[in-house]
Amino acid sequence: MRMYDIIRHKRDGLPLSEAEIRCFVTGYTAGDIPDYQASALAMAICFNGMDAAETATLTDAMMRSGDQVDLSCFGAYTVDKHSTGGVGDKTSLIVGPIVASLGGKVAKMSGRGLGHTGGTVDKLESIPGYRTELPPTDFIAQVEQIGIAIIGQSANLAPADKKLYALRDVTATVDSMPLIASSIMSKKLAAGAHNIVLDVKVGNGAFMKTREQGEELARQMVAIAKSCERQVSALVTNMHVPLGWAVGNTLEVLEAVEILQGKGCPRLRQLCEALAAEMLSLCHGWTPEHSLQKVKEAIDSGAAFARMQKWIVAQGGDGAYLTDTTRFPAAAVTQDVVAQTGGYIADMDAEQIGNIGVLLGAGRRQKGEAIDHAAGIRLWKKTGDCVCAGDCLATLHTNRADVVGAAQAAYRAAITIQDAPPQAQPLLYTIVR
Amino acid sequence: MRMYDIIRHKRDGLPLSEAEIRCFVTGYTAGDIPDYQASALAMAICFNGMDAAETATLTDAMMRSGDQVDLSCFGAYTVDKHSTGGVGDKTSLIVGPIVASLGGKVAKMSGRGLGHTGGTVDKLESIPGYRTELPPTDFIAQVEQIGIAIIGQSANLAPADKKLYALRDVTATVDSMPLIASSIMSKKLAAGAHNIVLDVKVGNGAFMKTREQGEELARQMVAIAKSCERQVSALVTNMHVPLGWAVGNTLEVLEAVEILQGKGCPRLRQLCEALAAEMLSLCHGWTPEHSLQKVKEAIDSGAAFARMQKWIVAQGGDGAYLTDTTRFPAAAVTQDVVAQTGGYIADMDAEQIGNIGVLLGAGRRQKGEAIDHAAGIRLWKKTGDCVCAGDCLATLHTNRADVVGAAQAAYRAAITIQDAPPQAQPLLYTIVR
Repeated sequence: MRMYDIIRHKRDGLPLSEAEIRCFVTGYTAGDIPDYQASALAMAICFNGMDAAETATLTDAMMRSGDQVDLSCFGAYTVDKHSTGGVGDKTSLIVGPIVASLGGKVAKMSGRGLGHTGGTVDKLESIPGYRTELPPTDFIAQVEQIGIAIIGQSANLAPADKKLYALRDVTATVDSMPLIASSIMSKKLAAGAHNIVLDVKVGNGAFMKTREQGEELARQMVAIAKSCERQVSALVTNMHVPLGWAVGNTLEVLEAVEILQGKGCPRLRQLCEALAAEMLSLCHGWTPEHSLQKVKEAIDSGAAFARMQKWIVAQGGDGAYLTDTTRFPAAAVTQDVVAQTGGYIADMDAEQIGNIGVLLGAGRRQKGEAIDHAAGIRLWKKTGDCVCAGDCLATLHTNRADVVGAAQAAYRAAITIQDAPPQAQPLLYTIVR
Repeated sequence: MRMYDIIRHKRDGLPLSEAEIRCFVTGYTAGDIPDYQASALAMAICFNGMDAAETATLTDAMMRSGDQVDLSCFGAYTVDKHSTGGVGDKTSLIVGPIVASLGGKVAKMSGRGLGHTGGTVDKLESIPGYRTELPPTDFIAQVEQIGIAIIGQSANLAPADKKLYALRDVTATVDSMPLIASSIMSKKLAAGAHNIVLDVKVGNGAFMKTREQGEELARQMVAIAKSCERQVSALVTNMHVPLGWAVGNTLEVLEAVEILQGKGCPRLRQLCEALAAEMLSLCHGWTPEHSLQKVKEAIDSGAAFARMQKWIVAQGGDGAYLTDTTRFPAAAVTQDVVAQTGGYIADMDAEQIGNIGVLLGAGRRQKGEAIDHAAGIRLWKKTGDCVCAGDCLATLHTNRADVVGAAQAAYRAAITIQDAPPQAQPLLYTIVR
């Protein structure tokens, strides 16, 4: 079997056979197939797509290209959650302990932030002492004892995807639905959970810009997981607006604590309840109504917050920071952004707000850059809110005094204020099961 | 300007700007743009094409990537001829001296054979002493004195095309009309002739399989040449049948000599007359009728054959071989292929016959392989001919006794014999000017 023929078949619109796809993935991972052939194939896939069987095979082959985490000791109770990435998305910090407090087993590997989107591992590292790397036996033992552990992604999880994604990133071949779906799912499946809840973000702050794109990606990822005999649901949710009231690592940890203390942004709580309920329904076979009821009780009783504390401490974090959040180091500069006109906030450019977070030090432009955990944005007014001239729209937190002026101007430019109230935006568009 | 954006623009169906195309060609030739980005772009071009302006710019940029032969000392009388490649195509050996004998300046660089198609340089090397490499000053001086010199292609002619073609060859991105047209024309334009006649072969023995494809390629190449202010014509001609009566290097030199001696295959003579007349019309501004008349006279008077002898001797070849062709070394084995049934030859698989030539030793499967100049095929019966069972269809010439049986069987399989005479096939489909 020659890579040349595999490329030619896809170029000519033929479906690739299972043997062809496995030959490509194996050969490319081993370095036997050069980048220039892989990129030509990726571009042909951008144009001619892949059907469900091809996409499932590609995912399976990439999943098998490296380590696969063995969570079989937990039976059918393991549950993972994956967001396609957004601005202010701290839901993992909230739903993880909720689900763990209700019997789910959350053995999770998370990523770091890049560009305008944040990453769970960065957020957790705001907490002094928190260890994002655990030996495999400790990882399993912690999940066994506490029901939750969240670590950084192992270097050898789906290395075929890692190599192919890096290539796609520099050859304008990222924008292909089957390639996006297989990339995400190869890592999720290799991470070993039996149940998976996907949060597909849709909007100007997300990778998927339209609801239609988001639903298609959700359908493809659900189909892949089912073909691998996992239980899966995908929530397609709003990312036209940053999620919650905080953007930035420490600020988002504080917001997660607030939610688990029964306070905070109602819309963020609503999304976390929906995600956690879906995870529990998959784990336990509960009805959606029962799951939702249990989730609300876990928050309101304090059980979920107690579980968060146990988890953070078990993983080396200083629990005192959670009970007394004033301990977290604050940024040297806090500066308000004030509305120059009155009216209703009709739109927020969530991607731009994410980029302002990067400017303030909360994120990174390129992999490997250091971040400032204290930096970020506290949002006081969001889409739909009424503001008067002079009202505080947001507070910028940063240790870079020199960027404050530019960040204020950029923040104002990212907010559209109009006279009439805008139409309300749904939080949850649909659930694909 | 980033290569990523150039790829993305073409992927999204946008025309590339002149600056983008020149940035790509310059960067790729210099090694600053990696193969994996170039192959992704080539695949995007396979899908989204290039318009006439893009194709002209790509050609111009590749032409300028290396040496350009300066033939300005010959004014508007320089004329080149290029065939897109076929089986038994020895027309350059015939039209070159005809045109030179009538005042055209043929300063030509030719290629070597690969796969089922032959190459003029290989054919000329059948003649003992013939030098396919000349110092530039000798090359120009010979054209000045005799009107013709044919040498191998300089290593540094259109290196961008050389590099890009090698990449396309292994990434299934050869089949793109603007890439094919620009590849051919970048080399032809760099070779410096003011007038260019293209012979676009169409049929089972050619790269273009259909008349429509051939005409489209002809149109694109003519448009490119005109955009570079050269005079150009493209003849779209039949390659459903091998050209003439001989396939193989020495055998084709002998056939060229026959034609210039007023003998040989009438259909081959007809094509050579048409090509030579077109070349002269471009050089001298003659009418097609006048050019054709002059060409016939040059053959019939012996002037063209005399010019061939002068040319070959000037370039180091032993002229005695042309006057006494029995001097050419013969192959050790000659074996007839005999018809097993009677009827009319309805079809010949020209590509397969070219491949049989390779099997006999006349060609090469891969670049750099040695060839056997004496090997080849003498065709006795061609498409449209009536044959009886037992008639000799062809004679195989080879020094590889072990392949004769397989070659005989393959030759029979390449010939379709039916009861009724087939429809006559045109030799010349159209001329694009």
